[in-house]
Order: sequence, then C-alpha cells, then structure tokens
Amino acid sequence: MNSFQETLIEHHAQVLTVDAVLHRGRTAYQDVLIFENRLFGKVLVLDGVIQVTERDNHIYHEMIAHVPLMAHGSAERVLVIGGGDGGTLREVLRHPVAEVVLVEIDREVIELSRRLLPEVSDGAFSDPRVMVVVGDGSRYAGEAGTSFDVIIIDSTDPSGPGEQLFSPEFYRRCRDLLRPGGILVLQSGTAFYQPGQLDDIRCRLAASFTAVRPFMAPVPTYAGGMLALVAAAPSRRTLQPAMTALRTRFQAIQGQTRYYTPDVHHAAFAMAPIFCSAPRPADRTSIAARPALAS
Amino acid sequence: MNSFQETLIEHHAQVLTVDAVLHRGRTAYQDVLIFENRLFGKVLVLDGVIQVTERDNHIYHEMIAHVPLMAHGSAERVLVIGGGDGGTLREVLRHPVAEVVLVEIDREVIELSRRLLPEVSDGAFSDPRVMVVVGDGSRYAGEAGTSFDVIIIDSTDPSGPGEQLFSPEFYRRCRDLLRPGGILVLQSGTAFYQPGQLDDIRCRLAASFTAVRPFMAPVPTYAGGMLALVAAAPSRRTLQPAMTALRTRFQAIQGQTRYYTPDVHHAAFAMAPIFCSAPRPADRTSIAARPALAS
Repeated sequence: MNSFQETLIEHHAQVLTVDAVLHRGRTAYQDVLIFENRLFGKVLVLDGVIQVTERDNHIYHEMIAHVPLMAHGSAERVLVIGGGDGGTLREVLRHPVAEVVLVEIDREVIELSRRLLPEVSDGAFSDPRVMVVVGDGSRYAGEAGTSFDVIIIDSTDPSGPGEQLFSPEFYRRCRDLLRPGGILVLQSGTAFYQPGQLDDIRCRLAASFTAVRPFMAPVPTYAGGMLALVAAAPSRRTLQPAMTALRTRFQAIQGQTRYYTPDVHHAAFAMAPIFCSAPRPADRTSIAARPALAS
Repeated sequence: MNSFQETLIEHHAQVLTVDAVLHRGRTAYQDVLIFENRLFGKVLVLDGVIQVTERDNHIYHEMIAHVPLMAHGSAERVLVIGGGDGGTLREVLRHPVAEVVLVEIDREVIELSRRLLPEVSDGAFSDPRVMVVVGDGSRYAGEAGTSFDVIIIDSTDPSGPGEQLFSPEFYRRCRDLLRPGGILVLQSGTAFYQPGQLDDIRCRLAASFTAVRPFMAPVPTYAGGMLALVAAAPSRRTLQPAMTALRTRFQAIQGQTRYYTPDVHHAAFAMAPIFCSAPRPADRTSIAARPALAS
C-alpha cells in the first residue's frame, strides 16, 4: 500500500502517501486503517474516511471540547459519545471537571488508538476522572441514571455505526440528560460539501433545543477543510459569552491550546451566507441516504 | 485525461475527476490547464496548482477584495496585480470605485479566462472603469505615475512568474504607490502547510508597512483548505473598523456577496496560535527555494 485515497466526496479525493501501515482490519462495526504519513504523522481511517491525524487533530478536538466547556464556565460532569481515539477526552481533561464518561460503541477503536495512537489520547484514558463505557451511545443516553453539564457527540459521519447519533430522538435524550445551563455540541460534516447535512442537523436539534448555533473549525484533512459543528442549549443561554468572561476562564487552560483562544471561539461562530440556510421542516428522511452534495 | 492530481504539498495531494479538458497548453510564462469537474465546475490550473474553480472562487475573491475595500471605506482608485482570471476585478467593481488598473503579466491567462471562464470575470473586463495593463507587476509598481487607495496582489505562489511579487523591494514600491490611508492586501499561501511562508511575508512587509495583519479565507480547493492573506498599511490605521462602520459600508454591496459579511471580516482576523509566530529577521533567502513544509 503506497498511498491512501479518501473518496468521501464524489468527484474529489485526497490522497496521502503511506509510509507504513500500522493496522488494517475490520472490527464488529467498521473497517479500521492506521498508517503513517510523512506530513500528518499517524492517520486513523474508519470506513475509508480520515478521522484523526497526529498533526491536525488538535484543531478538531480543541474546538469540540473547549467551545462548550468555556461557554459553560463551570462544567463538572461531561459526557462524550463516540471519541474512541481519546483526543476529545484529552482536551476535556484540561478543565477542572469532576467526571467524564466516554461512551464508545467500538471497543477495538479504543484499544487500537491507545496502542497505536497514544499521542492522541495522551494518557487521558488513565485519568481517574474518566469512566469508559463500551456501548451504544443512543441507548446510554436513554438509560443513564445521571445528568451532565456538557455533552459532546464526537461521532463519525451519519452512515455506518454513527448514523443513530444524528436522530431527533437521540437529541431529545441528550437534552433530557443535561443539567440546567447544560450545553450539547456535535460535529455535523464538512460545511462546504455537505451543506444539506448541517441544515438537517440544525432542524433536528431545533425540535429539542432553544439555542442552536453552528460554528466552524478548519481541519486540513477533513474534506473541504472546514468542519461544521453545532452547539445547542435547551434554554436561552449564550453560547458565546462576553470576551471578558471567556478571557478570565481561558486562564485555566492558557498555553495548553494550539488552536483555541477566546478570539477564535467568537470568530468560529461568524457564518458566511453560503453556510446559512433558512430553517426547513424537520420531518426528513435519513441524512445518510442523501447524496453528499445536495445543491 | 480522467483525473487531475495536484501535488503542491509533498505527501498529500488532491485529485479531481476531469469530465472535459477545455484547454491545455503552455504560455510564455506557465502551463495552463482548464477542465470541467462535476463538483467544482470549471477549474483553472497554472503550473499544476489550482487557482480558481467556478464553485469556490467567490470565497477567495470576496475576501481579497472586500476586506481592504471595506476597511478603507472610500477607495476611488484600485490597483490589482495579477488576477488575470478577472475574479478579483469582479468583486472590486461592486464598490463605487472610479478606476481599477489590472496588471497581469500573462496575456494568455486573461484571454483564456475571458473565453473559457466568463463566469469568473462576469463581464468585469468590459467595465469602463477598468484599465488592463499586460506587463510585469513589479516593474509597473516602480514606474506608475499615479497612486492608489487600495492595492491587491492577486498572485500565484512564489515560484514561477509570481516570485518577484513576494520581494521586499516590490512591497516598498507598492507602499510608495499608496495614497494616504491606503491599504495593501496579498495572498500568502496555505496557512497550515506553509506557515513559514506567512511568517516570511509578514517580515518582509514589516520593513515597509506599520500595520501588518494576516487574515484567513477557507477555500476548499486550496490545499489544506485555509488560505492566508495579509493586509498592510503604511500608517497606523485600523484594518478592522468598528462593526457599526463596516455594517454601514456593507449596505452598498449587501446581497451581492456569498461569503463576505462584516462579521466574517472581523472573524477572519482571529489568529489561532498555530498560525502565529514571533517575528523573525527579514534577511531571508528566496521563499520559493524553501520546502513547502519547513516545520
């Protein structure tokens, strides 16, 4: 294997040279490929789509973790659904949280990541504040006997094992798990190539959440380079606190981030017209069934 | 030719399917390829590097034109160096400017773009406010007998015919061409893959300009998805006017942009730590001679 070609989007692909294949196989849920690339370091691929690289994963993981945690300001209990590579966990643990529950459906992704990509979790799985649940995130959300200040849905795209993590029912369950003042955040595809996906997710969230705000993270190895995320809260609360508040809170993690800053937090919410659509009815068919490029 | 593979960056490439080749040849200065891709529409490639696509060029052209023009607020005379495809011209002309001079070294790029990519210039070359000079931009800057409110360097990367447009001497000439309150803006490579290039350009500009501020534009077909641009002014002036001023000025072009808004203008200047470096000495060797990934 001399090169890996990702074909998430039709008519466009990215190709990475492969210096060494570290793992290639199929788990109970998905195909896993882990390889070395001279530019990006180790690369984790699930079902043919790049999930994490050593060199640029901090952009994604910092934004999906610090935006809700900094917006909240005093989160004690955090739930991460998905995120078996441990990168989101790593960033969450920079905050003075009391407990983080990580629910990952695929035990092998956790094991392979800890063994072959230890740089990504950076010891996070050994932190005494972390509890790992191997299981179905949607089911966990329906049965959990506890509540959380922040819920982070660090899923794959809405096809394969990640699909159920994009349903209105799952979002409702997440809302019911949030403590007062709680915040949900999730990844919602590449903004440029999958604008319909972002629209759909916003609609589905709007059925259960009062505040729904998309924001952006430029991740070079995600097709199109611009990942869309969405923050949501059941109550009218600000997902962009005043800069003075953010700067005060930032002191706790300053120097530990390479992408996130309070300025970047605010800037990430500035939406260009091409990424905005009027809300549409929520009664839609499966997102996964729709072509990547609906426009 | 079934597909086009761009290899601007080592160990990573993007591949676009080719539905039809519209032109393939060599001008006096560079290789030109124009093809159709089902996702991006028509694609213009110079010396193997994607310059413009029908579908995403507005992000680049809006940001390189509207950021300096909106920051200036009352520009009458604009100089565009490079930009033979006409996309920057198209955006500049949305403003009530009196004259725009476009200096492009490669006549064939203008002719091919007008003939095969008319969607990009959208009639801009026929606007009576436009004067086209076919010639060397650096030489023009040294000999022009007139001055400008805004200068836009819409160049290729610093190898091939674009190289001289990255020299400290050229930047000094541009400064001397600016009217009081004038602003220079230029593209400076992909922020993630070519961080050394952005650093170098900032250093070189700092020798002639008091205010030097990088900003970002997420362009899917530019490798890494995040293009760095730099705005510079000889005097201490704000390149990010207050939002109220920007909103007032924006009324003149509102509804004509798909990416640029006053919010996006401000957000584009928020720099993540990974894209910031301490200033380094300006006495450097050719940017073009350095490997794309210096880190």
